Amino acid sequence: MKLLTAEQFFQQKQNLTDQTNYRNVDSAVLDIIADVQKSGDNALVKLTEKFDGVLLDELAVSEEEFLEAEKSVSEEFKQAIRTAKENILTFHANQTEQSWFINQPGGITLGQKVTPMERVGVYIPGGKASYPSTVLMNVIPAQLAGVKEITITTPPNSDGKVSPYVLAAAKEAGVDTVYKVGGAQAVAALAYGTETIKKVFKIVGPGNAYVARAKKWVFGDVAIDMIAGPSEICIVADETAPPNFVAADLLSQAEHDEDARPILITTSNEVAEAVQAAAYEQAEQRERKDIIQKSLSTNGRIVLADTLAEAIATANDIAPEHLQLMINEPFENLATITNAGAIFIGNYSPEALGDYAAGPNHTLPTSGTAAFSSPLGVYDFVKKSSVIHYPHQALASISKDITTLADAEGLSAHSYSIHIRKDEEDDA
Amino acid sequence: MKLLTAEQFFQQKQNLTDQTNYRNVDSAVLDIIADVQKSGDNALVKLTEKFDGVLLDELAVSEEEFLEAEKSVSEEFKQAIRTAKENILTFHANQTEQSWFINQPGGITLGQKVTPMERVGVYIPGGKASYPSTVLMNVIPAQLAGVKEITITTPPNSDGKVSPYVLAAAKEAGVDTVYKVGGAQAVAALAYGTETIKKVFKIVGPGNAYVARAKKWVFGDVAIDMIAGPSEICIVADETAPPNFVAADLLSQAEHDEDARPILITTSNEVAEAVQAAAYEQAEQRERKDIIQKSLSTNGRIVLADTLAEAIATANDIAPEHLQLMINEPFENLATITNAGAIFIGNYSPEALGDYAAGPNHTLPTSGTAAFSSPLGVYDFVKKSSVIHYPHQALASISKDITTLADAEGLSAHSYSIHIRKDEEDDA
Repeated sequence: MKLLTAEQFFQQKQNLTDQTNYRNVDSAVLDIIADVQKSGDNALVKLTEKFDGVLLDELAVSEEEFLEAEKSVSEEFKQAIRTAKENILTFHANQTEQSWFINQPGGITLGQKVTPMERVGVYIPGGKASYPSTVLMNVIPAQLAGVKEITITTPPNSDGKVSPYVLAAAKEAGVDTVYKVGGAQAVAALAYGTETIKKVFKIVGPGNAYVARAKKWVFGDVAIDMIAGPSEICIVADETAPPNFVAADLLSQAEHDEDARPILITTSNEVAEAVQAAAYEQAEQRERKDIIQKSLSTNGRIVLADTLAEAIATANDIAPEHLQLMINEPFENLATITNAGAIFIGNYSPEALGDYAAGPNHTLPTSGTAAFSSPLGVYDFVKKSSVIHYPHQALASISKDITTLADAEGLSAHSYSIHIRKDEEDDA
Repeated sequence: MKLLTAEQFFQQKQNLTDQTNYRNVDSAVLDIIADVQKSGDNALVKLTEKFDGVLLDELAVSEEEFLEAEKSVSEEFKQAIRTAKENILTFHANQTEQSWFINQPGGITLGQKVTPMERVGVYIPGGKASYPSTVLMNVIPAQLAGVKEITITTPPNSDGKVSPYVLAAAKEAGVDTVYKVGGAQAVAALAYGTETIKKVFKIVGPGNAYVARAKKWVFGDVAIDMIAGPSEICIVADETAPPNFVAADLLSQAEHDEDARPILITTSNEVAEAVQAAAYEQAEQRERKDIIQKSLSTNGRIVLADTLAEAIATANDIAPEHLQLMINEPFENLATITNAGAIFIGNYSPEALGDYAAGPNHTLPTSGTAAFSSPLGVYDFVKKSSVIHYPHQALASISKDITTLADAEGLSAHSYSIHIRKDEEDDA
């Protein structure tokens, strides 16, 4: 891991995202989208054969496959899913929003009506790994929002099967509409609909570069959660932080992906040195050692800060997906954190706790986008409508201000729609 | 205006948006963005000369220009701006969100911290028209959210000036950072920064196709409000609706743009006929008669519904930007409205009231996107961070569930970060 001062770190800061620089992927993605728009299910079957190496008879996961999956997973796993589900429900229940109305003098009523989206799609990645936790993290907030139809898509493996863990999690969450489609073709199907897959109004869930770019392209025709980039952990540690804990947490992020960014910011030279040593020592013992070592050496950073204030300012500048505060008085410093997807407080709140079971969402803004984005939440699955009611006299009282502004903007038909109501005698 | 049954309307429904079909505009937009990324202010000056026909000495509006603008607008206009400002403030104050925390047994603390974005950019269109109301509608929610730095960009006219109405509205709203840049180059400058214009974290405000596509491209590097398409009004009217009011309101939408969509859905044949006649009769008298007539004949629709339920189902399917309920018992039917940007209730609540002065935002989801998007609001200018704190024993109690899930997902470094804490003796 590279050792830097806060100033050096800031000077070497990379631009992590540039959404205008994906022309090669985009070209392939646009072809796939056009194919699905034109040929629907046929395109999905053909593209799944091409990319996943399996010719499917049915896109939908059958009831039998669900039963088989449920039988194949352990009781221990089911119990873990139930614990996670309960904690996710408890936390996210605090995010539900109510419609509100206010009355103003003269019989005026204004308000904000909150309505769930009708139908949403959840993308669950496939491939070598399996993501049952992602099923819960995406489905439960949508259900709490009141979304009635939830569709999951996930790529099949070469046997035409879907991870039993994913199916068991879907069943536990109460979703039984699962399609064996992945990649940009799944995003296109969810965005525009096919004979089998109904068009949805929002697409959420992580995926590879093709999934991310497809989501970017269909954004505007449907809503999307975010365009996920490389993910990161940033640990702010003082001399009280146990170096072997810090190292283990950096490694838990590093094992995701060679592009993952494990960053330690510390005010303690001793902690910096001890973490550096412990990280490489621990890496030797981990299964995903190659990925971890690549991530550590390429993207790992240890930033030496002169003061805690400098450490926190650096963290805010990074706007990390995961921020761990392993310092003496973490709660006292919470107010100074302005940019972070999730904030883990103290020595016993590692990222893995939030990834699986504490309750808050693990779908978090990556690559610095926490400066302007939020964790996935119930708020992602509702939309608001303003409500406006003015009686005749109330409209008359404000008419002059409206027509003055409309005339200043050169919109005289707007003015006329006010004038015509002033001239009328009747009231309502 | 074309007269249709609800069934015919549904069958002829057009796909209003397809975000994958703008390759010509995109190519020009990407060149502009690359130019601004590379050459900063120089690119802005050069592109402003090219597109707006004026060579600027200074990108920023000077204090003198502000003073000049203030002198040139009427007292009446200033009063109208103050009325609008007060009503927008009153309504949007209801949207502010607080951080919250919950305590769970075992010393667990979970929460959601709400933080304003640091810096946002507001795009105000220029050209022939002037949009002082748009300044208020975009700036005030950001201020209520707690955003400290707000930057406005707007294209200059060929004299190198900016609309005095826009400047007076900006001054009244308390924003004095205004740059004379428009088009895709303004979006690029806000997204990536130049020597003069600081990078922002969210870009809001309406614009032409180049602005909309530039916003789509930079989305992900910064947040954006929405990608605006053709806008619409949908009036649901029964036999109690005054046809001349209905016609005037359809025309107020039609005058915006030839692509604007004025739609009446009515259960009354008499109202349908009377509105059809009144619309063309009124159009003759309006200044923007040509635009209005084009919009009416191309995109105008009168849908005859058999029942109010069918009328409302049709409106929900359209998911209109503006929905007017001019029916006998509008409040009683409010719960059945699921998709609309703003809902105007009764015969004296025309769209123009909401456009300027009632208080709710006039930046609304267009082209059917109200099915998954909300009006611009205070919530657009904050982001949330999850907060997670577990003490040692609380983590120990949930350890097994976490490691079971991590192992199912093949992420053993996640498991290790939990195991290492179980083995430790100390507590914190």
